[in-house]
Amino acid sequence: MKRTERVGAIVKILTDSPNRLYPLQYFCDSFSAAKSSISEDINIADTAVRAAGGGFIETISGAGGGVRFVPDITQDSLQALQEEFCRRIRDSRRILGGGFLYTSDIMFDTHLINGLSIVFAKKFRDRGADYIATVETKGIPLASMVSRQLNLPLVIIRREAKFSEGSTVSINYFSGSYDRVQKMSIAKRAVIPGSKAIIIDDFMRGGGSTKGIADILSEFEVSVVGTGVAIASTLPEKKKIDDYTAIAFLGKVDEEQKTIEVFPNCRIF
Amino acid sequence: MKRTERVGAIVKILTDSPNRLYPLQYFCDSFSAAKSSISEDINIADTAVRAAGGGFIETISGAGGGVRFVPDITQDSLQALQEEFCRRIRDSRRILGGGFLYTSDIMFDTHLINGLSIVFAKKFRDRGADYIATVETKGIPLASMVSRQLNLPLVIIRREAKFSEGSTVSINYFSGSYDRVQKMSIAKRAVIPGSKAIIIDDFMRGGGSTKGIADILSEFEVSVVGTGVAIASTLPEKKKIDDYTAIAFLGKVDEEQKTIEVFPNCRIF
Repeated sequence: MKRTERVGAIVKILTDSPNRLYPLQYFCDSFSAAKSSISEDINIADTAVRAAGGGFIETISGAGGGVRFVPDITQDSLQALQEEFCRRIRDSRRILGGGFLYTSDIMFDTHLINGLSIVFAKKFRDRGADYIATVETKGIPLASMVSRQLNLPLVIIRREAKFSEGSTVSINYFSGSYDRVQKMSIAKRAVIPGSKAIIIDDFMRGGGSTKGIADILSEFEVSVVGTGVAIASTLPEKKKIDDYTAIAFLGKVDEEQKTIEVFPNCRIF
Repeated sequence: MKRTERVGAIVKILTDSPNRLYPLQYFCDSFSAAKSSISEDINIADTAVRAAGGGFIETISGAGGGVRFVPDITQDSLQALQEEFCRRIRDSRRILGGGFLYTSDIMFDTHLINGLSIVFAKKFRDRGADYIATVETKGIPLASMVSRQLNLPLVIIRREAKFSEGSTVSINYFSGSYDRVQKMSIAKRAVIPGSKAIIIDDFMRGGGSTKGIADILSEFEVSVVGTGVAIASTLPEKKKIDDYTAIAFLGKVDEEQKTIEVFPNCRIF
């Protein structure tokens, strides 16, 4: 195999499984090449990946070391992504009344949310998390993509305990958006006590649902090391959780004027 | 930029967005290179991607043409994936009673389901589908990954109509697994009448839920052009839908002996 082909193949393998560590030997065996050749290939692959945008290849030396692809986003690409995201949200046909917006088409557009997932993967990559946690339903595709980017398992908290979940723990919490008490349920075997989780959700208004996730996780002594939401509303200003990262902020939704105020979070990083 | 770097960058860009068509000119502009050089780069990138496994680069000529990465899986990799999938399911600690198995950890393992998603992407890529459809909750991560592989939007059918979905259409259907009538609800604006959908779900017993999805889609004259389930039980032999593709079959679950019979579907392609 020629070097150009080897470099392309290495890029494919590494970027297919973001944040998964491959020992150098893996590539030596796959391509019957010496370690020195593969090392040089990796350097070229890193340059190539950086040029394409969206991440870099990291080499971790020593025993248990190897190489991995780390998803990343440049400031320019982030701005372009946020503008595109805000532009999609701003469409007045989304207004449903009661301050609600129809956003399912955005949250289920896998190309767009793959972009958003990279933002959270960059933000939270050094938190030492063991899981990505979300509550059904609309944030699941986004949380799945973050899971993939960070190479971490996903935990989905249900609204109702299901038989297929085995024994579960449930809590009740107050949702400001729906102005009522809601329920959350988690399978006992879904999490390991003492571990760390990143919470990902599509939307936050008062933070009740996000706090609910943190509360139910704390029943298992799982600590939250990061919270990412695609959209956070500017009001109420005081949320039930303090530390979160939003990609866009939703301001006033004017049903009469048919306008939606939405703007990017300029302080993600 | 050197050719080796350009090839690596092209691999990264194309494989990042499977089944997304890029005009050749896009790469000429990105890398300030002539069309003839980029054409040769693409050929090398195709060889590289095939060597890495998991797909190939397709060139579509003529106006509106371009290049795209098509996810694929070799017979050997498919067998290895199915064996790994069956091995994970076969763990007797999954037995919950009543024939139910705990499979959330498998269905939420994004590395594994990314593999399964490629199988469905290969199976259904020529069906001319407009959407991937699933019903909440456990199949959503898998359906999200298939969405990404086929570059199609995702439609998630809800169990209950939500205010944030706008006006919805609901149906009732009989679920054999739960031995009761269940409900499904879909946002009117989620689908375009007359379009085509691929149904993806995590599990099929009698096919009631899958038939429910087909029925609710048919309310919008959306036709189903493919159905993929990760696991199908061997019983009942007669399902409510005829044409589906399972990755693994679940046979007898013996609660006394603590054994789970599960085997790969050898006739996917």
